[in-house]
Amino acid sequence: MDTVSVALGVRSYPIHIGQAMLGRGDLLGPHILGSSVMVVSNETVAPLYLDRLLDTLAGRRVDSVVLPDGEQYKTLETLNGVYTALLEGHHDRNTTLVALGGGVVGDITGFAAASYQRGVPFIQVPTTLLAQVDSSVGGKTGVNHPLGKNMIGAFHQPRCVIIDTDTLDTLDKRQLSAGLAEVIKYGLIGDPAFFVWLEQHMEALLAREPKAVSYAIRRSCEDKAAVVAEDEHERSGRRALLNLGHSFGHAIETGMGYGVWLHGEAVACGMVLAAALSQRLGWLDQDDVQRLVSLLRRAGLPVRPPEAMDRERFTELMAVDKKVIDGRLRLVLLRGIGDAVVTSEFDHAALRLTLDARSAA
Amino acid sequence: MDTVSVALGVRSYPIHIGQAMLGRGDLLGPHILGSSVMVVSNETVAPLYLDRLLDTLAGRRVDSVVLPDGEQYKTLETLNGVYTALLEGHHDRNTTLVALGGGVVGDITGFAAASYQRGVPFIQVPTTLLAQVDSSVGGKTGVNHPLGKNMIGAFHQPRCVIIDTDTLDTLDKRQLSAGLAEVIKYGLIGDPAFFVWLEQHMEALLAREPKAVSYAIRRSCEDKAAVVAEDEHERSGRRALLNLGHSFGHAIETGMGYGVWLHGEAVACGMVLAAALSQRLGWLDQDDVQRLVSLLRRAGLPVRPPEAMDRERFTELMAVDKKVIDGRLRLVLLRGIGDAVVTSEFDHAALRLTLDARSAA
Repeated sequence: MDTVSVALGVRSYPIHIGQAMLGRGDLLGPHILGSSVMVVSNETVAPLYLDRLLDTLAGRRVDSVVLPDGEQYKTLETLNGVYTALLEGHHDRNTTLVALGGGVVGDITGFAAASYQRGVPFIQVPTTLLAQVDSSVGGKTGVNHPLGKNMIGAFHQPRCVIIDTDTLDTLDKRQLSAGLAEVIKYGLIGDPAFFVWLEQHMEALLAREPKAVSYAIRRSCEDKAAVVAEDEHERSGRRALLNLGHSFGHAIETGMGYGVWLHGEAVACGMVLAAALSQRLGWLDQDDVQRLVSLLRRAGLPVRPPEAMDRERFTELMAVDKKVIDGRLRLVLLRGIGDAVVTSEFDHAALRLTLDARSAA
Repeated sequence: MDTVSVALGVRSYPIHIGQAMLGRGDLLGPHILGSSVMVVSNETVAPLYLDRLLDTLAGRRVDSVVLPDGEQYKTLETLNGVYTALLEGHHDRNTTLVALGGGVVGDITGFAAASYQRGVPFIQVPTTLLAQVDSSVGGKTGVNHPLGKNMIGAFHQPRCVIIDTDTLDTLDKRQLSAGLAEVIKYGLIGDPAFFVWLEQHMEALLAREPKAVSYAIRRSCEDKAAVVAEDEHERSGRRALLNLGHSFGHAIETGMGYGVWLHGEAVACGMVLAAALSQRLGWLDQDDVQRLVSLLRRAGLPVRPPEAMDRERFTELMAVDKKVIDGRLRLVLLRGIGDAVVTSEFDHAALRLTLDARSAA
């Protein structure tokens, strides 16, 4: 088992990574302070792993709630179902929520924990690659609004993150690829050696070789933990780097309808657009853009936006992005592989041309 | 103008109290950091005061949203309407929310501010006595769930509170009385001299004499600010004292249907039940119980629970109170006027007898 620490003072917590972790009550137990637990999962994950997790919680008063699966259910309405389950089960301020599932389950559960009775503790047990390398770490929680993704939420750090890499055995191939988009993102933002490692080990990752997968998860968590420790609430701009590809990506997700494109797929395409714009600005070599496109393609990811997303639609949807400050759009752009910057200082004509061109070719 | 400070380190803020304050752009301005503002009000208050407030914000990009009036609208659905207005108006992370109205408007706006784009600043401009002396101060924000009052929310402190005592001129008599319940509560919890002052000045308060009203608001804010500064997140038990009468009161509000009894009316009745239980336990003199009942009656407040609330209904609803910890109900009880305690150490048979007796007589 590997352990990565997220250093946030009194809110610090461990990320435990390994095999057969769902059965490790010794890891979960110390983070449950009260007598009751509410496990939140979804209809895909619960039949596979809920019982195994519940076994490790024996002796406590444990309830569970199973949500529908998919980004289109990351809504206030689904969230309200979690509140109802908590109230019907008489869960009080000392209860602990456990998120067992992918990013949607983690985000909803985290926001339920942030807001139920004005805040209760929670634990992340992510079961998709995307949740393991990204959404379960760092305390961003929330739900979508029809007009914008992740527009409603809170910063609320988990008490611990338990990553059982065995859960990836049952993960859909498309979901695995979506998770790889966020893994590649870490290399691209600030870890060029990891980018090279990914170029060398993409086939091992797609074959789910445990050693390669574990290494990619650990290194992704280390990269993310370092950024979060420096800028927990995304105030200095450092944390905003993690949103590389996300302004474009959120526009695709919202524009196509939540759940049509997976988050990781939209981010992959968004990273290509960010790279293409950076190249157009003269900040990034064509070779580096091609290395990115090639790696994403090998990971099974889309590198062109869907036909329905034309420039007008992108522009309209990106106007409500959380990185818009006082009316100015900020984007994460690239000055090299492993060298991302957050900036509102770019030529908007170049952005328009990039969106019209729709590709990096 | 009086100013009371809420001392919370980096989250400290002023409460300004005076007449003709709605026109004071010099007080509001310094707390608005970005270029846009969203004023949230309700259908009763907006026609009276919205334009006056908007005038002081001239030169900024200002939108407003008007909510229906009443506790029954303090829901996730109404909250979602605020998010929609913010997104449709392209309000970004640098926007400031302003709550212009009573406790419901303040609680919803505060939670919208806590959760929109994971947190934006907000300002309280309370226009009811209850909001001025209680709900606008201290950072408790949230909405109700059909199964329990204030079960969904966050701690989110305002940047400042601006209390224009002139707004009380248009306040409904029943709403004025409801506010007085929370004023009386401060005397009862820990300020016996204020309780005596209230016994001497109740008629002046009911006549809305500006000097008496201003004094009562300032002293209530001082009492609340002192408690909040010591225990912002209600962890030490000190802040829980402010919930005197509220466990019973929330049960009445939820049980009767939100909006049927005003919050202050339910709290008045709840304080009598807390006093009656304290007397039954031998902690409080009959004379003190009678002083309380008499003062509440003079303030125009109910002192007996509604017929529909029998012991079973109280017990069922109080089981989901936020002061239940690991299954044990804690109550705020009295050892004297000005001497409240939070405790789970009381004879539950005495509680049952008190709920059966339904009065302090």
